[in-house]
Amino acid sequence: MPVLQPIIDIAELLHQKGVSEVIVSPGSRSAPLTLAVARHPHLRVHVVADERSAGFIGLGIAQQSQTPVALICTSGSAVYNLAPAVAEAFFQQVPLLVFTADRPHEWLHQQDGQTIDQPYIYRTHVKRSYDLPADYSHADTRWFIERSINEAVSFSQLSPAGPVHINVPLREPFYPADTDTFQYGPVRTIDVCPTQPTLPNDVWHKLLTEWERSERILIAVGQVPYTPALRTILGKLSEEFGIPVLGEITSNLPGTNQFITHTDTFLAGIDPDVANTLRPELVITLGNSFLTRNLKTFFRQYPAHRHWHIQPSAERIVDSFQSLTTLIPAQPVAFLEKLFADLDYQRFLQGDDEDNESEAGEFLNRWQTADHQAARHVAQTLTEPDQPLTDFSATQCVLDQLPQRSILHLANSMPVRYANLVGLRGDLDVAVFANRGVSGIDGCLSTAVGAALATDQPVTLLIGDVAFFYDRNALWSNPVPANLRIVLLNNDGGHIFRMIDGPSRQPELETYFETPHGYTAQRTAQDAQIAYAVCATLEQLAPLLPDFFQPGPSAKLIEITTDKHANQKQFQKYKSKMAGN
Amino acid sequence: MPVLQPIIDIAELLHQKGVSEVIVSPGSRSAPLTLAVARHPHLRVHVVADERSAGFIGLGIAQQSQTPVALICTSGSAVYNLAPAVAEAFFQQVPLLVFTADRPHEWLHQQDGQTIDQPYIYRTHVKRSYDLPADYSHADTRWFIERSINEAVSFSQLSPAGPVHINVPLREPFYPADTDTFQYGPVRTIDVCPTQPTLPNDVWHKLLTEWERSERILIAVGQVPYTPALRTILGKLSEEFGIPVLGEITSNLPGTNQFITHTDTFLAGIDPDVANTLRPELVITLGNSFLTRNLKTFFRQYPAHRHWHIQPSAERIVDSFQSLTTLIPAQPVAFLEKLFADLDYQRFLQGDDEDNESEAGEFLNRWQTADHQAARHVAQTLTEPDQPLTDFSATQCVLDQLPQRSILHLANSMPVRYANLVGLRGDLDVAVFANRGVSGIDGCLSTAVGAALATDQPVTLLIGDVAFFYDRNALWSNPVPANLRIVLLNNDGGHIFRMIDGPSRQPELETYFETPHGYTAQRTAQDAQIAYAVCATLEQLAPLLPDFFQPGPSAKLIEITTDKHANQKQFQKYKSKMAGN
Repeated sequence: MPVLQPIIDIAELLHQKGVSEVIVSPGSRSAPLTLAVARHPHLRVHVVADERSAGFIGLGIAQQSQTPVALICTSGSAVYNLAPAVAEAFFQQVPLLVFTADRPHEWLHQQDGQTIDQPYIYRTHVKRSYDLPADYSHADTRWFIERSINEAVSFSQLSPAGPVHINVPLREPFYPADTDTFQYGPVRTIDVCPTQPTLPNDVWHKLLTEWERSERILIAVGQVPYTPALRTILGKLSEEFGIPVLGEITSNLPGTNQFITHTDTFLAGIDPDVANTLRPELVITLGNSFLTRNLKTFFRQYPAHRHWHIQPSAERIVDSFQSLTTLIPAQPVAFLEKLFADLDYQRFLQGDDEDNESEAGEFLNRWQTADHQAARHVAQTLTEPDQPLTDFSATQCVLDQLPQRSILHLANSMPVRYANLVGLRGDLDVAVFANRGVSGIDGCLSTAVGAALATDQPVTLLIGDVAFFYDRNALWSNPVPANLRIVLLNNDGGHIFRMIDGPSRQPELETYFETPHGYTAQRTAQDAQIAYAVCATLEQLAPLLPDFFQPGPSAKLIEITTDKHANQKQFQKYKSKMAGN
Repeated sequence: MPVLQPIIDIAELLHQKGVSEVIVSPGSRSAPLTLAVARHPHLRVHVVADERSAGFIGLGIAQQSQTPVALICTSGSAVYNLAPAVAEAFFQQVPLLVFTADRPHEWLHQQDGQTIDQPYIYRTHVKRSYDLPADYSHADTRWFIERSINEAVSFSQLSPAGPVHINVPLREPFYPADTDTFQYGPVRTIDVCPTQPTLPNDVWHKLLTEWERSERILIAVGQVPYTPALRTILGKLSEEFGIPVLGEITSNLPGTNQFITHTDTFLAGIDPDVANTLRPELVITLGNSFLTRNLKTFFRQYPAHRHWHIQPSAERIVDSFQSLTTLIPAQPVAFLEKLFADLDYQRFLQGDDEDNESEAGEFLNRWQTADHQAARHVAQTLTEPDQPLTDFSATQCVLDQLPQRSILHLANSMPVRYANLVGLRGDLDVAVFANRGVSGIDGCLSTAVGAALATDQPVTLLIGDVAFFYDRNALWSNPVPANLRIVLLNNDGGHIFRMIDGPSRQPELETYFETPHGYTAQRTAQDAQIAYAVCATLEQLAPLLPDFFQPGPSAKLIEITTDKHANQKQFQKYKSKMAGN
């Protein structure tokens, strides 16, 4: 048996446990891991030189598959370059298996190269950290490795899913002799049976009673991956019981009239009298983070009497409206379906309660009216005559032409906000992704590249210039997947600082916040061999898009050049018009 | 007094404590820190969008000044993007003050944006971590901030110098009203008196006795910043007492005949009989890490009877040859000067001991003969007729024409190794830097940009293509300093894997290790507005360099295109020729 057989076994264990995608960043210390996965007949290995980008590409793949992706890097600062993606995966609850090669620990602080203190380096930003032994002569060490890999793969998927760190100290020699052949298996897999959190009957009935006693009930949905079953049950609850269901672009609710999706517009600086008419008695939240401050501020300033938060795990109290009364550990879809069934049955037994219904209907009506009005305001802002090409108007134009059954990635900072203001067409079957775990700009492009690697569907990324250039190494290591479409809003700097109130008033705005750079993406696109087009007027943009979204032999990038002052002017006009209502 | 006065005071404290350079990465949470330093009349603030690059630019400045540089970033993954530079600074012992803006801690895990677990995030890779209070109403909190900043600045410089983390939770509002004016001072500075480690007399005499009893003494110098006084005293010790002084390119010893600088060539696979004639009885080491494995392997395989390691701090036992007997906490220059003076005086009292002297002379002679022979071998390899342009020959050509009184940055992976094989001309007064703390490729370009910002001297960076493109954001945020000269050895991939024995034999070499990318730097240089030239033959290169090194209005990049097979062939020839001796 080769000395490194336990490392070869890791590759087979990953395969047996359902992992199929691996991202490798080149290195010598990590070579045994690299060779183990590269030679495995069933693992798909992507090689990405910049570990920061590698981490986010892995995240983008795992977002699509909801299956852990393995990352492999060498020892030293490579490990820290994975950290931004690890943190994003942790807060976004995406499973990753982070394999970091290491020198055996006795070499720490001995002035040897690429040696840092790796065990537990990601601290509280991974679900668990393993530190494998460097020596395999005792049978217990091989048992420990086998058991740990089994546990790591299972635990990364256990709700809340997230990254797990496996530090792998390795001794030389790293490379097999020419005569060595790799034997995959047999290995022992350990299954962890899946469970569902189930509420006892008495607790369930207490909740039902609380629901029935509540006059105005509202459901607000944070970031949730595209889940048709969730849409369906939320639609039924809203329709049947007159319940406003609030969602943002990252909630993956359809843009029909049924759901309330323009809160960022109409809750901004809302009049207290109006606000009180919109205030629920019971608010139910589910999903991950909310995108906009206006929504959160509304519920903090006008708290409901009771606030239920539904999340699969009981381990942490998330109280983002500062009004939580009950944490319900449950799978949201299962919980809401059972709730609907029980309520529907009771209503059948009791006959309709018209009073309640009409009050609920009125409450829903108030939210829907505000929402429709807000939608019209946005539309009016963007259809004024002699519209300049702005980030806002470009976003609408692009979202309007998105291909059916495609994937939309929204980069952080302004693009995800503009897209939320505009919203998606109701008939579109598009899954929306955004790195809202930590909300950094550091890996938005890489994450979209990962998504495009994981699917044959078209993947459209809407991204600003700072996030684009920050993460351009996403385009460096490999052919960029041909199904990727990058829409780059280039306003030459950190436009968001001009849009928010504080920095825009400071004399330091340009120099210390926006930091204009003068870059266009043309040369970056040429280097990456992706098709490139540039556009500076709204009239040009719309006719370019059908062709842009057509399948083609390479990825495509359209650079939309906008003027920061025009952006600012339009956004101020939009904001003041809203305030006037 | 503005609410944020304690934050404004931090800027004044930095200034009063001798900090003058600040790197800011844009963000909103960090705005109070940004404005505090931006408005300060005496702080020089650089704005760098990519925090990974920002960290290394700060490191590059601090390397030059040996004074702490302050880094400021916003909350969230920005903090992790600084981590690679923080780890490098820690192991390279360069002082940095890492200010990370944070949300107040009560917001952690509440699904708010850009919120991760920041206190103590750099763990054991900073010298100390501070977590400032978010509320300043109690006088003790302001006392704590003032005292902590005083301590942080002093402690970062206390030997061994290194990074210190100051986490700064901040509440809104972040931005001053238009009517607010910033008042800098008065603040209270606290001086920490500098001390020197001093050996008691009895310890000193014990060491002297040990020295005098040792027949063959050798000094090996790891990475040391350019220090003329160290060169002088080492030269005197070598000359007066017949002591071989070994140094690598990162030791900053001059390339004259006096010091032994070609160990990587002649210690490779050395014959045991020869090795035993070179084996010292007492080896003395100083400085940070050694560059080459051949040197370390020699001293591990042929350990001296006694091994002294001189380092300013007693806090950690560094035993990189696995033979350490005495750790001497001392400033190397002061220790060696006192040693020389005492030995010289004793010799004067005793009269010359010719026997000892001739044996020492013979020992030195053996090392010098091997060194001269190795130097000739390298020269012969590089002066063969019909020389191709290789990374090796290009390195020699470039080092040969380096400007006098300039700074040389050597990127990790192959460039620093080639430069070490070639060596510097003896008459050159050039300070050599390389990120050998962790030895990553992730910040070599940014570190050189930092050096160029900190000095008016020409700064030449020798870098390979993977390290260059990995870190190209170094060139993005600001005008690239005009005194920077980038020599890019582009062999289209991770050439090092072809040069070392293990991976070069694997069928996975190209795909999983070298990862060819097909990029040239032309477009990157155009985007960054730096002068660009390309060169593919040795005949072209030499005449290009005088003009390349001339001062000019912008930075310059010369891309040297080499063929990986030619590189490999030449290197193998060089290695086999050495083995034949």
